[in-house]
Amino acid sequence: MGRTSSARERLLDSACDLIHERGYAAIGVAEICARADVRKGSFYHFFESKQALTAEAVDQHWAQRRAVWTAELSGPDPALARLERLVRAQASAQADGKRAHGRVRGCLFGNLATEVTPADGDLGARVAAVFAEQTDLVASALADAVAEGAVPADLDVAPTARAVLAHLEGMVLFARLADDPGVLDGLWAQTRLLIRAR
Amino acid sequence: MGRTSSARERLLDSACDLIHERGYAAIGVAEICARADVRKGSFYHFFESKQALTAEAVDQHWAQRRAVWTAELSGPDPALARLERLVRAQASAQADGKRAHGRVRGCLFGNLATEVTPADGDLGARVAAVFAEQTDLVASALADAVAEGAVPADLDVAPTARAVLAHLEGMVLFARLADDPGVLDGLWAQTRLLIRAR
Repeated sequence: MGRTSSARERLLDSACDLIHERGYAAIGVAEICARADVRKGSFYHFFESKQALTAEAVDQHWAQRRAVWTAELSGPDPALARLERLVRAQASAQADGKRAHGRVRGCLFGNLATEVTPADGDLGARVAAVFAEQTDLVASALADAVAEGAVPADLDVAPTARAVLAHLEGMVLFARLADDPGVLDGLWAQTRLLIRAR
Repeated sequence: MGRTSSARERLLDSACDLIHERGYAAIGVAEICARADVRKGSFYHFFESKQALTAEAVDQHWAQRRAVWTAELSGPDPALARLERLVRAQASAQADGKRAHGRVRGCLFGNLATEVTPADGDLGARVAAVFAEQTDLVASALADAVAEGAVPADLDVAPTARAVLAHLEGMVLFARLADDPGVLDGLWAQTRLLIRAR
């Protein structure tokens, strides 16, 4: 019975890896199955389509990443220290990814966001929901920073949180293109400017 | 003779449109030819491969956009006014794109940057070269702003220019995902923070 659940897990992990490497449109069910060592006939036992698998892969990847995000943003430290931990964790994740996979792979959600179209059903909405959750997490930390007086009281937290994530996504895109995690070295210093940290 | 050059132009325009809409991997030579109303046999008279066509489409699109960038950044106005024009022109381009094509299509270069892999030959380098030119153009305006005292003298212009572009790319990605050019309304106000405008 472990066999069944593990084939499903392997399909999800393979899709996640392949989309990270080459995007959504570039990969097919046959390739996902080959990487997962699952017979193609079994694929449709688990998932209706590549799109359905990808939607679950997005949810699974965010469940894993969300645990990191909430851990970095939690604790007794001042809000800006927690936000700094989160931002530095994003840079570290790209460096770790390069060590593990040989290349800076960028952001699964950002990679999908540039590819999805209305023809991909609710996939765009799933990715948008992840960014909305990320925005809420950052906005919550920024609200704490306002309460602590670490950023100006008139900071518009929701649009500022979105700008922080936009800057992060753009920098990760440049790091992917250059295949160089060092591109992310200035991430926190620049984020401090966007949030008007004192 | 106009016939020949116009088929080539139509192939380039079609590739540019289709990559904007759905990305690089999702489209094929047959679809590009159908959109361009060019027979598939003729395609290889003009281009060696989809990759070769895309490389030229990148260069052509940037040649068109570069003209806009240099126009917005030129003139007798203060550097920050020129930079503001450029940033607002990017937001307008997304709104114009939605009017013309029915959807916010994002940035051709950003869309490619999340998809290209080493298997795509020098395509990644071509896209990186566009971003490098954009960074140089913004950095040059920032250097003028330093000279004018509009931003601090210790502003590190090259990394700041890259951060400005990263933020722009990320916001355009969010606008694409939401299919809403209004996402870009705060672009200039946020850019002012990144460049430490006085």
